[in-house]
Amino acid sequence: MTLVPVIMCGGAGSRLWPRSRSATPKQFLSLVGADTMLAATAARLHHADIGVSLAAPVVICGAGQEGLVQRDLAAAGRPAGRIVIEPFGRNTAAVAAVAALEAFALDKDALVLLLPADHHIADVDGFWRGVGAGLDAARDGYLVTLGIDATGPDTGYGYIRRGDVLSPGVFRVNAFKEKPDAETAQAYLATGEYDWNAGIFLFRADAMIAAFETHAPAILAHCRDALARAAIEGVLTRLDAGAFHDCPSEPVDIAIMEKAGRVAVVAPVRAGWNDVGSWDAIADLRKAGAGSAAPPERVIALNCENCLIESDGPLVAAIGLEDLVIVATADAVLITRRGMTQDVKTIVNALKSQGRKDLL
Amino acid sequence: MTLVPVIMCGGAGSRLWPRSRSATPKQFLSLVGADTMLAATAARLHHADIGVSLAAPVVICGAGQEGLVQRDLAAAGRPAGRIVIEPFGRNTAAVAAVAALEAFALDKDALVLLLPADHHIADVDGFWRGVGAGLDAARDGYLVTLGIDATGPDTGYGYIRRGDVLSPGVFRVNAFKEKPDAETAQAYLATGEYDWNAGIFLFRADAMIAAFETHAPAILAHCRDALARAAIEGVLTRLDAGAFHDCPSEPVDIAIMEKAGRVAVVAPVRAGWNDVGSWDAIADLRKAGAGSAAPPERVIALNCENCLIESDGPLVAAIGLEDLVIVATADAVLITRRGMTQDVKTIVNALKSQGRKDLL
Repeated sequence: MTLVPVIMCGGAGSRLWPRSRSATPKQFLSLVGADTMLAATAARLHHADIGVSLAAPVVICGAGQEGLVQRDLAAAGRPAGRIVIEPFGRNTAAVAAVAALEAFALDKDALVLLLPADHHIADVDGFWRGVGAGLDAARDGYLVTLGIDATGPDTGYGYIRRGDVLSPGVFRVNAFKEKPDAETAQAYLATGEYDWNAGIFLFRADAMIAAFETHAPAILAHCRDALARAAIEGVLTRLDAGAFHDCPSEPVDIAIMEKAGRVAVVAPVRAGWNDVGSWDAIADLRKAGAGSAAPPERVIALNCENCLIESDGPLVAAIGLEDLVIVATADAVLITRRGMTQDVKTIVNALKSQGRKDLL
Repeated sequence: MTLVPVIMCGGAGSRLWPRSRSATPKQFLSLVGADTMLAATAARLHHADIGVSLAAPVVICGAGQEGLVQRDLAAAGRPAGRIVIEPFGRNTAAVAAVAALEAFALDKDALVLLLPADHHIADVDGFWRGVGAGLDAARDGYLVTLGIDATGPDTGYGYIRRGDVLSPGVFRVNAFKEKPDAETAQAYLATGEYDWNAGIFLFRADAMIAAFETHAPAILAHCRDALARAAIEGVLTRLDAGAFHDCPSEPVDIAIMEKAGRVAVVAPVRAGWNDVGSWDAIADLRKAGAGSAAPPERVIALNCENCLIESDGPLVAAIGLEDLVIVATADAVLITRRGMTQDVKTIVNALKSQGRKDLL
């Protein structure tokens, strides 16, 4: 049985501005360690000892990003089996449908491991233990998610509530929950029944296709059509823009996972997972020893404590600072108090409304 | 009787890095209001109603700065009578000697008003009232200093202790004091006998020359020689480097003022004087309504309080900051806690020792 890893590479990542830009979003940047997020994700797919044959990764990316994808997969030593190019974003349900259809075309019995390009996983063995634990359920036709061990009442993640046990460490999903407020998150944690939803999925290609036929047939039809009319150039598959244009835009969680009958969660997965969703998260990861790719000769810091300071542009000279995040690029500098880095979105929105495309 | 204003324009101003650079030091920058410090200084010399005829200003500057001097004096509507170019800096005693010799050559009875190019004076009438009050003493051959009303126990300035009264508001100088520690400054203030030393001097050219003959004949001889052998090109006088090279380098306070017999102070001068000696000083001046020349479209600040943020380079986006000074240029960004801006010198010294001439 073949496991086809499909990397979802279309994100924009405005929360990591000013490093992350529309032309080079988060997955193509070195934020934790020297590799880009995508290269680290691809490199992780090298290493599996769970009794399946691992196909070359399929990457689904945005228009104009195929060069960066090839660069990063080459750096990881895992050239793509196929790069599917979306002419525009249509959210993750369309990505899951395309992933299932591509894998099914490759092998009617294929399993798909669908995962984001821009997450950090410190413990790769732990990650594969989680995937391995879900294999039987996936073979049985369950749409399986990885439920990440919730180590705190984080309000930045969705949660999954475990239901009946299917096998040791594998449960039916009782409910998917949107990002909660602090009180609700605390209540979830107290029950011991909740895990974080990392957006990492394992499923038989045919089971996912069947779920789309039942719950989101329009998305499936548009994706089938966009693939059938796609322009193929070597490893590149350019989805047909006309067919893809009218595809409904929905998250796979809502279009499929919350509606499908046989949905399972592997939990708790302990893999040092982090979605690297803010500069605060990066500051924490750096502190935890995950290193920085920023040239240190561009920073002089005197009497600074608990600060993340990096620059790939101007020299940054810092004096007497505490609890700040400072990120400098050639044309923009972010300076923010730690714990407020989510407000970067407000800056990005202000620049959008000012029409400052040069800075986005 | 002619009053010749002589502007000392040779300073380096490393405390205002990164805006201030060796090629464009503080006096050539717009730091308070739209005019450069030098242009504001020259413009101030337009306005005198104290019964003397005001000559065109003489500017003494460093090599390579004559273009900037001409630009700023043209902007102020006060073209220089003469621009004397020092091939290298030899401190303020040499500047005072050159000033006296130049003015004496112009008019044997000339008075000299010797003043720095890079101070802010909010109340120009108050400034001229101070100069006017010192005229009689200067005519009588006193070397007169302006004693600025000490509004607080500042440790960043030298102090002058008043002695016997010469006339209302004019005193013999009892002593010049170096920058004191906080306790000493407090003690000075408590006596009511001390004023700040602004480094602004008023004297007869021949009286200053005589003082040099007595107390610093070597400096006078070298300056005389450097002027005698100077290359004249229109309004420019280039001091002879060979003659100037061996001139002793001393502050005029130490070489002359502390030693001369007839030294007076006008006090207290109330002129809204500020030496703009640090980013903290600029932050205070901006708060006091002195305005900023920085383009505001290069700054986005969310929930920031009591911060000075300016950029003539990259966009600066600030979130949740308090009591910081942030100054961005194309190749360097300073971020420092208010009250610690004197430490900018440490940064500049670090860059010097790293040989980063591109940033100095």
